[in-house]
Amino acid sequence: MNFDLIIIGSGAAGLAAAMYAGRYKMKTVILEKEFGGETATAGKIENYPGILSIDGYDLVLRMKEHALHYGAEMQEGKAVKLSRDSNLISVETSKGEKYLGKTLILALGAQRRYLGLEREKELTGKGVHYCWTCDGPLFGGKTVAMVGGGDSSVKGVNFLAEYASKIYLIARGKEVVAEPVNFEQMKGLGRKVEIITENEIKEFVGKDKLEKIILKNPYKGSSELKLDGLFVEIGFDPNTELPSQLGIKLDDKGYIEVDNKMRTNVEGVFAAGDATSHFGSFKQDITAAALGAVAATSAYEYSKSH
Amino acid sequence: MNFDLIIIGSGAAGLAAAMYAGRYKMKTVILEKEFGGETATAGKIENYPGILSIDGYDLVLRMKEHALHYGAEMQEGKAVKLSRDSNLISVETSKGEKYLGKTLILALGAQRRYLGLEREKELTGKGVHYCWTCDGPLFGGKTVAMVGGGDSSVKGVNFLAEYASKIYLIARGKEVVAEPVNFEQMKGLGRKVEIITENEIKEFVGKDKLEKIILKNPYKGSSELKLDGLFVEIGFDPNTELPSQLGIKLDDKGYIEVDNKMRTNVEGVFAAGDATSHFGSFKQDITAAALGAVAATSAYEYSKSH
Repeated sequence: MNFDLIIIGSGAAGLAAAMYAGRYKMKTVILEKEFGGETATAGKIENYPGILSIDGYDLVLRMKEHALHYGAEMQEGKAVKLSRDSNLISVETSKGEKYLGKTLILALGAQRRYLGLEREKELTGKGVHYCWTCDGPLFGGKTVAMVGGGDSSVKGVNFLAEYASKIYLIARGKEVVAEPVNFEQMKGLGRKVEIITENEIKEFVGKDKLEKIILKNPYKGSSELKLDGLFVEIGFDPNTELPSQLGIKLDDKGYIEVDNKMRTNVEGVFAAGDATSHFGSFKQDITAAALGAVAATSAYEYSKSH
Repeated sequence: MNFDLIIIGSGAAGLAAAMYAGRYKMKTVILEKEFGGETATAGKIENYPGILSIDGYDLVLRMKEHALHYGAEMQEGKAVKLSRDSNLISVETSKGEKYLGKTLILALGAQRRYLGLEREKELTGKGVHYCWTCDGPLFGGKTVAMVGGGDSSVKGVNFLAEYASKIYLIARGKEVVAEPVNFEQMKGLGRKVEIITENEIKEFVGKDKLEKIILKNPYKGSSELKLDGLFVEIGFDPNTELPSQLGIKLDDKGYIEVDNKMRTNVEGVFAAGDATSHFGSFKQDITAAALGAVAATSAYEYSKSH
């Protein structure tokens, strides 16, 4: 299957790139592993300029419709192998399908971080959760914990407060750093929320599901905390495997280095969104979408001149 | 009047910056000369990711509501004088009002270009027009011309075609270069549109209003072209006057140089949108909004650490 442009990733960056490419009349395919990237599970989005409030899933759905409207094609498939000859870039999926493109946009996003605790995998979905928008509603009237010290974990606490009766926010650092609006909203929840700083989880305890956690340092005189559920929100790591296969230059944190046209160091290969280092740690839907638009424009210019 | 942040300009960049700043709980004022910047008069916007189609005016109106929702204040006023002491930036308006800010975002956009013909000013609004979304509907069943060879002029032709019975597109260059979707739409209009390339207007003729134009080179055997109206769409120049007052570094075309955090070379002063050179000539609503978000975030970080 031959395309003018292959886009790997169907988050805000990939979808915005596909929409622009469609307008440029490029034959475009989006390879999606999981629909909508991080945005799809981000919960309420209230900072996409022009849209006062929207669920992240609905936002990427709208972006998808926008991309399909201009003729982009969407295919399920996890890209596992990238290569490049003098003219074309080849993308192979885990199902063995092969896509050939004149240009490629890597809109890979970044992978969620895990705690790395012993029974974490076994208890996932059984009291240990990663997507609070998806699983939060399961904990109506229950006691839960959120692990993380940044803005997303505070947003998560605010979301969970609509369901849970008690929420512990467990942060490794000395303080929780979040957007003031979100932090104030959390403070407004009063005694429903308890913030435990300079602490970490040592162990998960429970038979078939999480029943309690053991903390590294005692909290209110006890190292044990009884919980019905726990959410992990401790950041993301970029996917470095795929770009490395093409010899794409990464920064020291593993994010793809791009110039202001979203060009990587490899001809015909562009990147956009959270997988890039363009705006540093400031990774938002509005920036991902803009970088996607820029990448598509550069891919279009490249394909015209090659 | 003291603020954490003063934003000059109320287009997509300025409004997105104000919304983000409001979320950061910064006391923010937007100084607006004309509401909505270029977006407000850009006609139909169909490439803002997530919004299939919206009038530009409505898009900036939504962005304004979004900014006001988070507490930003909007003031009419043309900034004419900028200065900076060690702590504060001062902005004076043409009405003599003075605003003091810890930080400043220049979201100045760029100024529309004129043809520079002798009777251009006198006939403005009397057959010579610059905003086709505003004035196009006045020419129902009439013969009009659009001057320009780029995407905006082609979009203008497509818009005018809903009203006018005949449209000439006059371009100085050898060809008209536009987004393929827009170009194809224009071609679909058939004989209603005639494209005149490698030509220019020498003279406007008409008593109280434009009646005809004199072309530099004859077209179909005549240098005269009878017109009811003419629209000028030949690009933009950035505002260099205000940034120069603060010693802000500009590129060779007069656009503000910024780094990836939208910092200018002057402490506490940031820039965003079409006034910057960040994405080169790729100047879109989605990029303006993203750069506004980045600028506000940097202004917030600066104000916290100073």
